[in-house]
Amino acid sequence: MDPLVIFTPSGKRGRFPVGTPVLTAARQLGVDLDSVCGGRGICSKCQVAPSYGDFPKHGLTVSDGALSAWNEVEARYDRVKGLKEGRRLGCQATVQSDIVIDVPPESQVHRQVVRKAASTRPITMDPATRLCLVEVAEPDMHEPAGDLERLRAALAEQWDVTGVTAPLRVLQNLQTALRKGNWQVSVAVHRPAGSDMPVILGVWPGFHEGGLYGLAIDLGSTTIAAHLCDLSDGRVLASSGLMNPQIRFGEDLMSRVSYSMMNPGGDAEMTRAVQEALASLATEIAAEAEIDPGLIFETVIVCNPVMHHLLLGIDPVELGQAPFALATSGSLTFAADEIGLTTIAPTARVYMLPCIAGHVGADAAAVALSEAPDKAEALTLIVDVGTNAEILLGDQSKVLACSSPTGPAFEGAQISAGQRAAPGAIERVEIDPASKAPRFKVIGCDLWSDDPGFTEATKDSGITGICGSGIIEAVAEMRMAGILDASGLIGSAEAVGTPRCEAQGRTHAYLLHDASAEGGPRILVTQGDIRAIQLAKSALYAGARLLMDHRGVERVDRVVLAGAFGAHISPKHAMVLGMIPDAKLDNVTSAGNAAGHGARMALCNRAARSEIEATVGRIEKIETAIEPKFQEHFVNANAIPHATDPFPELSRIAPLPQVSFGASGGGGAENGGRRRRRRA
Amino acid sequence: MDPLVIFTPSGKRGRFPVGTPVLTAARQLGVDLDSVCGGRGICSKCQVAPSYGDFPKHGLTVSDGALSAWNEVEARYDRVKGLKEGRRLGCQATVQSDIVIDVPPESQVHRQVVRKAASTRPITMDPATRLCLVEVAEPDMHEPAGDLERLRAALAEQWDVTGVTAPLRVLQNLQTALRKGNWQVSVAVHRPAGSDMPVILGVWPGFHEGGLYGLAIDLGSTTIAAHLCDLSDGRVLASSGLMNPQIRFGEDLMSRVSYSMMNPGGDAEMTRAVQEALASLATEIAAEAEIDPGLIFETVIVCNPVMHHLLLGIDPVELGQAPFALATSGSLTFAADEIGLTTIAPTARVYMLPCIAGHVGADAAAVALSEAPDKAEALTLIVDVGTNAEILLGDQSKVLACSSPTGPAFEGAQISAGQRAAPGAIERVEIDPASKAPRFKVIGCDLWSDDPGFTEATKDSGITGICGSGIIEAVAEMRMAGILDASGLIGSAEAVGTPRCEAQGRTHAYLLHDASAEGGPRILVTQGDIRAIQLAKSALYAGARLLMDHRGVERVDRVVLAGAFGAHISPKHAMVLGMIPDAKLDNVTSAGNAAGHGARMALCNRAARSEIEATVGRIEKIETAIEPKFQEHFVNANAIPHATDPFPELSRIAPLPQVSFGASGGGGAENGGRRRRRRA
Repeated sequence: MDPLVIFTPSGKRGRFPVGTPVLTAARQLGVDLDSVCGGRGICSKCQVAPSYGDFPKHGLTVSDGALSAWNEVEARYDRVKGLKEGRRLGCQATVQSDIVIDVPPESQVHRQVVRKAASTRPITMDPATRLCLVEVAEPDMHEPAGDLERLRAALAEQWDVTGVTAPLRVLQNLQTALRKGNWQVSVAVHRPAGSDMPVILGVWPGFHEGGLYGLAIDLGSTTIAAHLCDLSDGRVLASSGLMNPQIRFGEDLMSRVSYSMMNPGGDAEMTRAVQEALASLATEIAAEAEIDPGLIFETVIVCNPVMHHLLLGIDPVELGQAPFALATSGSLTFAADEIGLTTIAPTARVYMLPCIAGHVGADAAAVALSEAPDKAEALTLIVDVGTNAEILLGDQSKVLACSSPTGPAFEGAQISAGQRAAPGAIERVEIDPASKAPRFKVIGCDLWSDDPGFTEATKDSGITGICGSGIIEAVAEMRMAGILDASGLIGSAEAVGTPRCEAQGRTHAYLLHDASAEGGPRILVTQGDIRAIQLAKSALYAGARLLMDHRGVERVDRVVLAGAFGAHISPKHAMVLGMIPDAKLDNVTSAGNAAGHGARMALCNRAARSEIEATVGRIEKIETAIEPKFQEHFVNANAIPHATDPFPELSRIAPLPQVSFGASGGGGAENGGRRRRRRA
Repeated sequence: MDPLVIFTPSGKRGRFPVGTPVLTAARQLGVDLDSVCGGRGICSKCQVAPSYGDFPKHGLTVSDGALSAWNEVEARYDRVKGLKEGRRLGCQATVQSDIVIDVPPESQVHRQVVRKAASTRPITMDPATRLCLVEVAEPDMHEPAGDLERLRAALAEQWDVTGVTAPLRVLQNLQTALRKGNWQVSVAVHRPAGSDMPVILGVWPGFHEGGLYGLAIDLGSTTIAAHLCDLSDGRVLASSGLMNPQIRFGEDLMSRVSYSMMNPGGDAEMTRAVQEALASLATEIAAEAEIDPGLIFETVIVCNPVMHHLLLGIDPVELGQAPFALATSGSLTFAADEIGLTTIAPTARVYMLPCIAGHVGADAAAVALSEAPDKAEALTLIVDVGTNAEILLGDQSKVLACSSPTGPAFEGAQISAGQRAAPGAIERVEIDPASKAPRFKVIGCDLWSDDPGFTEATKDSGITGICGSGIIEAVAEMRMAGILDASGLIGSAEAVGTPRCEAQGRTHAYLLHDASAEGGPRILVTQGDIRAIQLAKSALYAGARLLMDHRGVERVDRVVLAGAFGAHISPKHAMVLGMIPDAKLDNVTSAGNAAGHGARMALCNRAARSEIEATVGRIEKIETAIEPKFQEHFVNANAIPHATDPFPELSRIAPLPQVSFGASGGGGAENGGRRRRRRA
């Protein structure tokens, strides 16, 4: 009888003739064992760990000679690159007698990427673009098929990839690569999800050691964040971000739409700005990871619909008026150079997730992919906080989605002492209810401001301003310390009983930190800051309430705070402020940059693309702009409900001036007023 | 019983309820009746001619009221555009009782284009890109599908075109077009042959009156010829040509390959030159036809392999050395801007026919498509004469192909008085055997040079030189008049007995025309000219003989002379010269620009693309460069066999210096010698 081969952890087993390579046995059994070089002993991706001894569970004893002896190829590989103790190359080691073979995680094609945040889904590697080493037949004058045609035949035979085509840029390099590699080349094969039209994106002589890379980009209204991933194992090699240069055309989405409406060619200006930003971001992140940007073959971009259209060179004007029609709601796959992304591989492909609706974009789709509310048993509210908040509410039975124009206040913009989350920014605040004195922490330092050594520790960065999470805590703490009333008014020094409440014209401001003696800034929370935060949090809360109305619930089981900023919000302070509906503190979690994680999933797994395309079709879209209840919730949410106890009765106050959707993107009243006039 | 509807000429018939539109009946019966607007009474493509009276053949009498009365849509169309007598719009006229309806040729979707040359195949219209008028659903906030998604749904429903995608450039215009057209748009849909991935190449509000156009380009080593065709009916609206600017890098293929080998970046220079030429040719031809070049959506290009690679930016170096490997032999479809063809529609597609072998290109494939030797009963030799000659020999049982490096002498280059075929060029020559005096005709004048009024008639153009067909006749006539011996030597004035044989160094030249008295040129046929023609015709003949050897025949049944130049060659003179194997004069025909016709077929009919792709796979390729017999035939063919009688015994002479394939591209001995040195 032929020897029995058992693979772990899959448990797959079968009998194979003596001399069968382990890789061959694995393939025949459908065991998930990687190989880029197709068993030529070059890529070392097929490493396995044979087990010896007694396996009573399998009724098997594995003897020492169960695999063929270490061969020259393995010896050379070990010499040059080093092979871990106990490892063999699956393509070299052959079966001699009964054997148990373990496939370590890093040798699995569909290996999982370790999760970062607890709530995000693991990523199973199966990128759209992968590397294949092929042996191509030499040309024959009597059978004059072209080099590409012989490469196609080899890919079909050796990799089961049929119908492959090649763009001109690949054709231009093909002949040289084949001859340099002595008819052995590595090709990057792109297989778009749901299509049987694979495309060769790159070709290299021999075995390509340089790797293939991908970018996952979260293109926000205010910030652009990118992760550079290794497409072989999903590792994030570098992460980088920059401000969206479109900010100079308007801080929030609707002011950018207005800019486009008011200025002929304005949309093209904004398109150019963001395309140039992406191109330079790609260069920077590749430099940071010390890889050749020409090896970036895939880019996944998630963003809201206005960013989506502006990036693609589509005038966003329709998104500024009912019925908020998208030019396209489906996912898109296109060449990177079509959006000016010419700093990466010239054949690179871009995938953009589908949009959910005119105001609920591919970023919300990416959050849905990452957080999978459609698979949750508990009713889950997911809030992705940015300049525009994406809100999802649902469980296995149904998912609802909307977006809400919070404006950039939560990102530290439109706040008098606001700044980006960078070293020196105040990120945590506590105010003593008795003395009304604050203590705080700044980014880049683990000490509180009243800890010994704090001054010394923050000497380099200084204390420069307040970031988004800092302002939320400051406002909530001011409310709990009685500095602020429920309507959001800062009391006077006399009323509150502290000289920190300084008069500013007809309003007051609270002094958080004074470094003026050392030539530093005086960091104040002004009445304008409070108003900006109130507008932002009311919009967010109103969106969530609207979805709860549609679902017919008064409470949710879980709240997930997503977004880079969401990760830093203190759930307690968010509830004091009334940003999110009340829930048990334990059930409020942070998902980190869920949109970015969703983008990474789509980058590393082509099935994730098909999955989210299907999911988006099933999500029920709620348009906040046409729901009278949204205005009502918005107005009612202006108050800062919690005085001291996180869960008192909600107290209502006279509303702030009502603002339309278009102009409500944040900012003080003056600002909102100015925009309203401009649109009128 | 429902009324009977009989369509002619198809004979298709069926019964339909009273009130059925004629177009609907035609569609249900599969009658070939065109419609761009899908029955909206806009495009007028569905015009039909109802017949009234007795139809004994059908056992039918058609009464006057068999169709509904002329309606308002038809009346308006007649008012605005005019409707031919007896015509009705098929989408407006409805069936009332038994009726016979004729579909005129211009109303057939798959109408045939009238043939130009007798031997070329008719073209049945079915272009890859066609216009569809669609009614798109308006956006709905509660079902937020994008505009593209609703257009896709409309195309599927109204035109049965599914899975359509749109490039960014179309997406960028889509929203404006839909709103301007009040949710009715015309789209240009491209359906590549053998693919189910249709692409929208253009979108216009309402019914697009401007038409869709295509270019069929024959890219030769020396000249580039283009036809601009209307994609709705195949009409050639303009034809234009220019010299291939690559000539400055080398006159024949192999000298261009050498240029690339010798000069780093030389291939890129040549690529740029030809791409720029195509782009400006497209602009010119559109201007000539007075159409917007932005409406050119398809381009079909045929050319030899070296031109093919240089156009695509592929270094042709491999084509200059055995085994003459093509980068790709298959057909190609790609975006026009990938080859710098940016003067036409930005979404335009290019189709390139497959290459047959390393020396037998897409131009030969186009000739095979046009002349269809694989469908011939008689053994047919097809010779496409250019700087490189493409030669096909075959019949239904098998087709053989090769190419032969004739050089540009046949195109008037490398001839002392040579010039392009343009007004003023001598194109026909006769020499009186007794007096040795010539008479000739020049292009642009129907008179012979000894006819009264010739001088007056050619006053404007002058007599400026000799074109390709003129030099062939001159050499053949010189031979028949005894001015030239079988070895190709021009006799002296004394030996021949005419002062027209002038001494030129150690050789002689024959004076064809002397206009020096009026300040014009002296047009001579020199010994160098004879040598250039001998080299060219020997290469051509040797290629044909080689195929005949492979087929095992001594004679062919038919000879087809293809190429713009082939159309002007006198078969008798070609045989006197020994350019082509002897055949009955009646069986030697001209196919005009067969490669260009093949390109037009592929432009106007997508099935022709699939057909030639399959045919090319079955053609047997013969590589002249490695066949010792080719050299032998070449050497043996140097003589000019026929003295006076067109079919005497072939007389052999001492061969000219042997030249290698690489350097044999034509030219005098000095020229060939120089190139040999350069490649050594």
